[in-house]
Amino acid sequence: MMFVLSSPSGAGKTTLSRRLIASDSDIEMSISVTTRQPRPGEVDGEDYHFITKDRFDQMVKAGALLEHARVFDQHYGTPRAPVETALKAGRDVLFDIDWQGAQQLREAAHDDFVSVFVLPPSVEELERRLRARAQDSADVVARRMTKAADEMSHYAEYDYVIVNVDIDRAETEVKAILAAERVRRLRQIGLDGFVRKLRSEI
Amino acid sequence: MMFVLSSPSGAGKTTLSRRLIASDSDIEMSISVTTRQPRPGEVDGEDYHFITKDRFDQMVKAGALLEHARVFDQHYGTPRAPVETALKAGRDVLFDIDWQGAQQLREAAHDDFVSVFVLPPSVEELERRLRARAQDSADVVARRMTKAADEMSHYAEYDYVIVNVDIDRAETEVKAILAAERVRRLRQIGLDGFVRKLRSEI
Repeated sequence: MMFVLSSPSGAGKTTLSRRLIASDSDIEMSISVTTRQPRPGEVDGEDYHFITKDRFDQMVKAGALLEHARVFDQHYGTPRAPVETALKAGRDVLFDIDWQGAQQLREAAHDDFVSVFVLPPSVEELERRLRARAQDSADVVARRMTKAADEMSHYAEYDYVIVNVDIDRAETEVKAILAAERVRRLRQIGLDGFVRKLRSEI
Repeated sequence: MMFVLSSPSGAGKTTLSRRLIASDSDIEMSISVTTRQPRPGEVDGEDYHFITKDRFDQMVKAGALLEHARVFDQHYGTPRAPVETALKAGRDVLFDIDWQGAQQLREAAHDDFVSVFVLPPSVEELERRLRARAQDSADVVARRMTKAADEMSHYAEYDYVIVNVDIDRAETEVKAILAAERVRRLRQIGLDGFVRKLRSEI
């Protein structure tokens, strides 16, 4: 399935994504492309694929992106090929994207789409977490707070909502959603045949 | 929410129900009424409320049962009052009922209904588990096997399906479904107000 985590930055989405990927070998991260510059500590091919605007435009034109959006004058997108390869192999894919990306993916994915929105417990806590990121200037923090209000206005488009009061509890909830969605009847391939066989043997 | 577990007898539903109730104080068991005789070890008011056919008919007539069905010449039903009391108090209710009961509850419950079907891993294992119940004669085992085939024909009416290969794994899956359904957006009361407050404070 396509498993989408969205939230305003600072709500804990990235930590939750990393913990999920680290603990579960049946789900892999979709790594977005972006035209923005790497921040200190970001690794090309791990955090993002950092590409030029020309390359980005080429990918859009070639249909090589499942979704793409513009945020703060920079462009972001999800490469199609790795997602399709993983899904064909029966693996799940985790997307750490915003509401614009989620809307486009939802349209592309049909039934195989599960979306989770992570909310901060309070505005104070959100601001505290954004300030704690040393690389973000006061100006960037203010801009991200405004963007957070915008992002949060889309929470009602998501299947599940987690209020991240405690990161360990939020992690348990995200993992429960993934585990539950995997035993959803419609997602279990071969179930019809299995039940038919059971019944025929009685 | 109303949380329904169905399965052919011998598939592990009762063990799963007991473990869920024992580990989670926010969900309580719906105790059915039945006109059948208690089996050795069954406790009135714990396993079932054992009642007469007259009393059963009175309850049906008074609308005091959320659902009722006839199985093997005996009658079973779900008392309405304790369920409504629990749901009004914001608690979840677990139902250990068959497909006939589940169909009727689904109609009554609308959105607040989550259903899980538990399948045995194989016919051999199902038969082994039924034989292991000392109180069941060969005749009863044979009759239950036939009923199992009938029960299993309804698995496609359920939201989730668990194949009980390993009871501990099945328990983890049932608990994950409950945890996930609790953070489903539509089930979280007050979320709109919470997000409105967050956004207004930015």
